[in-house]
Amino acid sequence: MSVDSSVSKEVQPESVLLCPQGTTAAPEQKLLCIFGTGDLGRSLGQRLLQSGYRVVYGSRRPNSCGPLPQGTKAMNHEAAAMSAALVFVCVHRENYDFLEALAPQLNGKVLVDVSNNLKKNLYPESNAEYLQRLIPGAHVVKAFNTLSAWSLQNGPSDANRQVYLCGNSVQAKQAVEEMATKLGFAALDRGSLSAAGELEDFPLQLFPEWRLPLRVAVGLTAFFFFYLVIRDIVYSYVEKRKDISFRIMVSLANKVFPIVSLIMLALCYLPGVIAAYLQLYRGTKYRRFPAWLDRWMLCRKQLGLIALGFAFLHVFYTLIIPIRYYVRFKITESTISKIRENRTSVFDTTMAWCADSFYSMGILGFGLFVLLGISSLPSVSNALSWREFSFIQSKLGYLTVFFCTFHTYLYGNDQFLYLSSYKWFTPPGYFLSLVVPSVLIVLKLLLLLPCVDRSLTRIRQGWERTDPEDGSVKGFVPPADLMLFSRKHSLRAAGFSPVITGSHHISGERSVQTPPSLKSSG
Amino acid sequence: MSVDSSVSKEVQPESVLLCPQGTTAAPEQKLLCIFGTGDLGRSLGQRLLQSGYRVVYGSRRPNSCGPLPQGTKAMNHEAAAMSAALVFVCVHRENYDFLEALAPQLNGKVLVDVSNNLKKNLYPESNAEYLQRLIPGAHVVKAFNTLSAWSLQNGPSDANRQVYLCGNSVQAKQAVEEMATKLGFAALDRGSLSAAGELEDFPLQLFPEWRLPLRVAVGLTAFFFFYLVIRDIVYSYVEKRKDISFRIMVSLANKVFPIVSLIMLALCYLPGVIAAYLQLYRGTKYRRFPAWLDRWMLCRKQLGLIALGFAFLHVFYTLIIPIRYYVRFKITESTISKIRENRTSVFDTTMAWCADSFYSMGILGFGLFVLLGISSLPSVSNALSWREFSFIQSKLGYLTVFFCTFHTYLYGNDQFLYLSSYKWFTPPGYFLSLVVPSVLIVLKLLLLLPCVDRSLTRIRQGWERTDPEDGSVKGFVPPADLMLFSRKHSLRAAGFSPVITGSHHISGERSVQTPPSLKSSG
Amino acid sequence: MSVDSSVSKEVQPESVLLCPQGTTAAPEQKLLCIFGTGDLGRSLGQRLLQSGYRVVYGSRRPNSCGPLPQGTKAMNHEAAAMSAALVFVCVHRENYDFLEALAPQLNGKVLVDVSNNLKKNLYPESNAEYLQRLIPGAHVVKAFNTLSAWSLQNGPSDANRQVYLCGNSVQAKQAVEEMATKLGFAALDRGSLSAAGELEDFPLQLFPEWRLPLRVAVGLTAFFFFYLVIRDIVYSYVEKRKDISFRIMVSLANKVFPIVSLIMLALCYLPGVIAAYLQLYRGTKYRRFPAWLDRWMLCRKQLGLIALGFAFLHVFYTLIIPIRYYVRFKITESTISKIRENRTSVFDTTMAWCADSFYSMGILGFGLFVLLGISSLPSVSNALSWREFSFIQSKLGYLTVFFCTFHTYLYGNDQFLYLSSYKWFTPPGYFLSLVVPSVLIVLKLLLLLPCVDRSLTRIRQGWERTDPEDGSVKGFVPPADLMLFSRKHSLRAAGFSPVITGSHHISGERSVQTPPSLKSSG
Repeated sequence: MSVDSSVSKEVQPESVLLCPQGTTAAPEQKLLCIFGTGDLGRSLGQRLLQSGYRVVYGSRRPNSCGPLPQGTKAMNHEAAAMSAALVFVCVHRENYDFLEALAPQLNGKVLVDVSNNLKKNLYPESNAEYLQRLIPGAHVVKAFNTLSAWSLQNGPSDANRQVYLCGNSVQAKQAVEEMATKLGFAALDRGSLSAAGELEDFPLQLFPEWRLPLRVAVGLTAFFFFYLVIRDIVYSYVEKRKDISFRIMVSLANKVFPIVSLIMLALCYLPGVIAAYLQLYRGTKYRRFPAWLDRWMLCRKQLGLIALGFAFLHVFYTLIIPIRYYVRFKITESTISKIRENRTSVFDTTMAWCADSFYSMGILGFGLFVLLGISSLPSVSNALSWREFSFIQSKLGYLTVFFCTFHTYLYGNDQFLYLSSYKWFTPPGYFLSLVVPSVLIVLKLLLLLPCVDRSLTRIRQGWERTDPEDGSVKGFVPPADLMLFSRKHSLRAAGFSPVITGSHHISGERSVQTPPSLKSSG
Repeated sequence: MSVDSSVSKEVQPESVLLCPQGTTAAPEQKLLCIFGTGDLGRSLGQRLLQSGYRVVYGSRRPNSCGPLPQGTKAMNHEAAAMSAALVFVCVHRENYDFLEALAPQLNGKVLVDVSNNLKKNLYPESNAEYLQRLIPGAHVVKAFNTLSAWSLQNGPSDANRQVYLCGNSVQAKQAVEEMATKLGFAALDRGSLSAAGELEDFPLQLFPEWRLPLRVAVGLTAFFFFYLVIRDIVYSYVEKRKDISFRIMVSLANKVFPIVSLIMLALCYLPGVIAAYLQLYRGTKYRRFPAWLDRWMLCRKQLGLIALGFAFLHVFYTLIIPIRYYVRFKITESTISKIRENRTSVFDTTMAWCADSFYSMGILGFGLFVLLGISSLPSVSNALSWREFSFIQSKLGYLTVFFCTFHTYLYGNDQFLYLSSYKWFTPPGYFLSLVVPSVLIVLKLLLLLPCVDRSLTRIRQGWERTDPEDGSVKGFVPPADLMLFSRKHSLRAAGFSPVITGSHHISGERSVQTPPSLKSSG
Repeated sequence: MSVDSSVSKEVQPESVLLCPQGTTAAPEQKLLCIFGTGDLGRSLGQRLLQSGYRVVYGSRRPNSCGPLPQGTKAMNHEAAAMSAALVFVCVHRENYDFLEALAPQLNGKVLVDVSNNLKKNLYPESNAEYLQRLIPGAHVVKAFNTLSAWSLQNGPSDANRQVYLCGNSVQAKQAVEEMATKLGFAALDRGSLSAAGELEDFPLQLFPEWRLPLRVAVGLTAFFFFYLVIRDIVYSYVEKRKDISFRIMVSLANKVFPIVSLIMLALCYLPGVIAAYLQLYRGTKYRRFPAWLDRWMLCRKQLGLIALGFAFLHVFYTLIIPIRYYVRFKITESTISKIRENRTSVFDTTMAWCADSFYSMGILGFGLFVLLGISSLPSVSNALSWREFSFIQSKLGYLTVFFCTFHTYLYGNDQFLYLSSYKWFTPPGYFLSLVVPSVLIVLKLLLLLPCVDRSLTRIRQGWERTDPEDGSVKGFVPPADLMLFSRKHSLRAAGFSPVITGSHHISGERSVQTPPSLKSSG
C-alpha cells in the first residue's frame, strides 16, 4: 500500500500544506500529451488533471486554439510529443497525415487512438491500424473510443465503466490500463491491434443481434396478416358481400400478435432441443453445431423478448375488447334479438369451464412470461446464481410454453363451437401457430424420458460415445465435472439469457466444443 | 484473436520498440501453471494468455491431452508445478488424490482451487479445505469458481465482474487478487479458507432466501383456496344443488390471489413495526432481535415481491371479467329478465361512488405497488440515495398498504349489499384478509404519535434507557450520529429492500446491535 | 469470521509456509487508526481487518469503550494517532473540537473524514473542511460517507461499489484510493476538498432532479382536475341539476391522467427541438443555452417517466370501464330503452374504424412508451451502444409521441359525434392537451426538411456560421468528428436518458459548449 508513500514524505511536506490546491509538485505526477484541442481533447484533459496527471496539448496553432482546461498549456506538436511518453490522438482520422512528419518524435511513445468514424466500413483499415502504419515506431493502443466525452471528463458512471483497449505492445497496453484504472475505469484487453476495427464499430452498431429475430418477427407478422386478411376480410367480402375491413385494426391484430408470439416463443426453445438431439445422435458434445443452429441459438433471448412484446400487445388488445363499439353493438343486438324472438339460452357449464380455463391459462402464461422477461434484465440476471437462472429460464420457460400452448388449444376448442373453421379450405391461423409449439413439447417430453435424459446428461458431462485415442485423458479430467459445463449449465442454454451475457454463455458453450482457434493447435 | 501475438516469442527483447507486434519478452510476464486440460483449464489458459501471462499445463499425459491454446505447452505435473509459483487446479475433486504425491513440488506455492461440486453436501469438507489438507505446505486459495468458463476466457461482463476468494494466506490471496484484477475482475476477499464451502455452494443455491416466503405464499394460497371452495362451491352444491365448480378457474382464483397478496404485503411491513415496538419496550437498539423476527425481517423483500406477483394476477383476472362467457351470459339474462318482468332499476349514486372508489383505490394501490417493485430492481435501487430508497420503500410502501386495504374494505362494502355474508357461519375470505393489514395500520399509526416517535428516534440514534457503566462513552461518540444509523436508515428497514443489498442492510442493522463476534471481545 | 485468525500474530514469520492458518506477520500489513468506537468505527475496523490491515482505535476512555472487533485494541487518541499514518475520523462533527488538541500528533497524517450530517445546510462549511481548518497540518480526505455500515464491514455489493473521495492532497487521496481498492471499492476522485459539501449532501438528497418535473405534474394535474370538475360536474349540476359527482373517481381521473401524460410526454421532447432551433438561429453549438432551457433539458428523463406513470394509470382506468357499476347500468338502460321504444340502430362501419383505430393507436403508443421506460432502466441502457440508445429514445420516442397524439385526435373525433363540445364556452380538456404535442410534431417535421437537417448536422459537427479569429483551428480539428459529438450523439439529447447517466450526457453536451471553468482560462 502506498499509505507510506503518501505519508512518509519528509521532503517538503509544507508544499502540500501550503497550497492545498497544488496538485502539482508531486514527483509521480506524470505528464501526458493530448494532440487536438477539440471537445474530446478538452474533456479528456480535464479528467486527467482531476486524476492527478499533468497535461500538455499539441496543437498546430498553440496560441489560438481556444479555451483549454486550467493548468494545461498548448505547444506545437513536436514539443508536445517530446515532452511526454504517452500521447492521446484526439484528431479526426482525416487529419492523421500530419502525424507522419512527427514519426521521429513519436518513436517509442505510446499513442492512444480514441477516434471513431461516422459510418462503418468507411475505410479499408481501422483508424488505429492506419495510425500504426503511419508511425511504425510508436506503440499504438486503441482505447476510450466507446466512452462519451462526459465519461472522459467526469469519470465513469455505471453506464460507462469499461474501457476496451487493444494493441500490439503489452507494455503500452499496461501503461494505458493503469491510467484507465487511475481514471476510475475498468480496462478490458481485447487483444492485438487487429481488434481495433471491432472496437471502432462498437459505438456504431445498431442491434446486430436483434436483426435476425426482428426479421423473423416481421416475416411472420406479414404472412399471418395477409393470410388472415384473405381468410377473414376478403372471404367475408367475396362470399357474404359484407365489409368487415374495420376488423383489421383490432380483431385481426389480436389474431396476428398471439400467433406470432406463440411461434416465436417456441422458436426460442426449439434450438436447445435440436441441439440436444444432435448431441445424442453424435454421442459427443465436442463437435461444433452447424452454423445455422449456432446462429439460431445465439438469438434465442431476442426471439423470446420479441415474443413477450407481442404477448403484451395481445393482452391489451384482448382487454379492450369489451369497450369496443363493435362488441357493444353486437352484444346489445344479440340481447335485443333474443328478446324479440323470445329465445332462451341455457347456461353451458362445460363451456364456462373451457372459457374460464382459456383465460386462466392465458393469464398464468403471460405472468410467467413477464417473469422470464424480468429475469432477463441484466441487473436481475446478474443477481442470480447459475442454478437459479437456469431454473427460471428452463423450467419456468417450458412451463410458459406449455401454458401458452394450452391456452391456444382451449381457444381452438372454444372457436370450434361457433365457426366453420375451414374457409376456402384454409385452416384458421391459430391452427398454424400450434404446429411449432406442439412439436417442441413432444420433442422435449421425449428428452425427459429417463433413458434419454441419462445419455444426454452423460454426454454433457463430457462422456463421448467413441473416444479412440485420448479417452484416457478424458477419463482423467472429465471436462464437465466443473459446474460450468455440468447439466445445470447445459439446461441454461434452453432459455433466453440475460441481455449482456446471454449470447456469451451460449457461445461459451460453443467455444468449448473445440473452436477452430484451439483446434488448429491441437 | 491475439492468441498468436502472445506466442511467437523467444526473439529480440528489443523488438518492443522496433516491432510493435512483439508482445513478448517483457520480463514481467509471469508464468502460471494450470493442472487439467479440460474445458475450464483451456478457457482459463486462453484468458491468461490474453492478459499477458505465460501458461504451462500440467497433465498426466502431456503428449495427448488434446487441443490447447496456442502458445501454451503441456508438461507432466511435476515439471509444471516446479516452473510456476501459482498453480490453478482445474481438476475434479475426485481426482485430487494424485496431488498428494506432488506435495514436495507444490510446497510454498499458491494453489488456486476453482472447482465446484454437482450437489451440495456431497463431501464433509469443502474441496479447497480438502486440497489444503492434502498439501499442507501449499497456500490454497479458493477463487473463480462462481464464474462461467466464458467469463474466464473472455474477461468479465457486467454479470460476472466479481471474483470471490478466500484463503488462509494473506500473501497468496493478494497474488490471486492482483491476477484477478489484471484479468479485469473485481476481487472480493471472503476471509479464511473456512469460507470455501460457502463459495462452493454459491453456484448451486436455488433461491434460498425465497423459500420461506414461497412456503408462506403456498400455504396461504392452499388454505384460502380450500376455504373458498367449501364456502362457495361446496356450499352452493349442498344447499342449492347448483354446480358452480367452473368458478374455480377465474372467480375463485380472483378471490384467492388478492387475499394472499394483501396478507403478504402486510406481512412484509409487519416485522418492521414489531421491531420498533420491541426496541421501545427494551429501551435500546443494542440487543438482538429474537431469531424468528430476524428471519422474518430478512425475507421482507421476497414477501413483497411475491405479493406483487399475486396482485399482478389479480389485476388481469379482474380485467378479463367482462369478456367471460359467464359474465356476459349473466348480464344478458339480467337485462332480459328486467324487460320481461318490466322492472326498472334506479341509479344509485352512493353505490356508484363506492364502486368507482373501489376501482380507483385498487388501481392507485397497484400503481404504487409496481413502483415499489421497480425500485427493488438492483440497478434502480443502486441509483437511489439512502434517503430516496427509504422514502419509496417506507412512505410509499405504507401508502400502498393503505390503498390496498381501503380497496378491500370498499369491496366488502359493496359485497354487503348483495350477499348474506356468513354462509355456514364462516366469514367471507376478504374479511380474513383484512385482519393483518388492519392490525399493521393501527400499530403503525400508534408509532407515528409524536411522543412514541420521539422515543423511538432517540433509541435508534443510540440512546439507551438504562446505560449504567459505559454511558459516558456513548455520550462521547453517539453511535447513531452518522447517517447510516440515523432515523433515515432505520426507516429503511420498514420497506423491502433491493434484490442484492436487501438483506444486507437489514443484517447490517442487526450486526451493529452488538453481534456475538464483537461481544465476545468486549 | 476469520477476524481472529488475521490478528493474533507476532509469532513465527516462517509459519506462512508451515501453517496455512497463519495469515500474520506479513510485513506489508499496515496499521491504520480509527478515532471513535461507535457503530461505524467498529464496522470499518472489522472490514479493514478482513482486508489484511491492522487496526487501533483512538478513544477517550480506551478501557471502557465497549465491544471492539477481535484483534484490535483501543488507546488514547494521542498514542493511536502517532502509531498510524492514516486516521479515520468516525466521530460526530459536534465532537471534532477535541481533535484540535491533537494537531501536533496529526501533523502530516492522512485524516479520512467519513461523517455525514442529519440535515442539509446545518453548518456553513462542510465537515471535512471544518476538520481541515481545525488541523491545517493534516491531509484531510473526505471519503466513504456515501456507504452504509454494512458495505464498510462486508465489502462492496453491486449497490455500493463506488467510493467518492475528495481532498487537497493528491498523495493523501492516492493512499485512500489504494486502500479503498484493496477493500474492494471503486474509488472516484471528485476533486479538491471544496467538493466535500457536495459529497456530504449526497446521502441526504431526496430526488432533486425529480422536483421540477413533479411540480409540473402536480400543477398540470390540479389545473385539469379543477377545469374538468367545473366543465363536467359543476356544469351538469348547474345546468341540468344532475349530481354526477361520483364521476370524479374514475371518469374524471381517466380524463386528467391521459391529458397530463400527453402534455408531459411532449414536454419531454420539446426542449430538444427548441435547442435545435436555437442552434440553427445562432449558427453554432458553442454557445450555452439559456438557463431555463438547460434546466428543462436536464429533467427530460423524469418528465418522460412521470408521463409513463400517468399513461399506466390511464390504461388501467380505461380497462376497468366495462366492469363499472355506472357503465353496466347505462348499457342495460340503453338496451332496455331500445327495446321499449322499438328502436333499431344501424352498425356504423366508419365509427367502428375510428373507435378501433383509437384503441389500436393507444395500445401501440403505450407499448412503445413502456419500451422507452424499460430502456431507461440503468442496467438496460448500459447494455446499449450510443447509436442504439439514440435510436430508441429519439426515433421510437417520436413514434410514441405520434401514436399518442393521433390516439387523442381519434378520441376527439369520436367525442364530436356525441357531445356538444363547448360547455360554457370552454374547450374540452383533450383539446388543450393536443396543443403542445401538435406544436412539437410540426416543429420536428420542419427540422426533418432536408435543407434544415443539413444545416443542423453541420452545426452539430462543430461548424460555425461566423468564426472570425480561430476558424482555421476549427478547420484543423473539427471537434465534432468524433462519435461523441456527431449527429448520433446530438440525437440522443432528444430522448430521455438512462437514470444515472441521463443528465450527464446532456450536461456533457453542455459542458463542451465552453463551460465557464474552461472559458476563464481561454
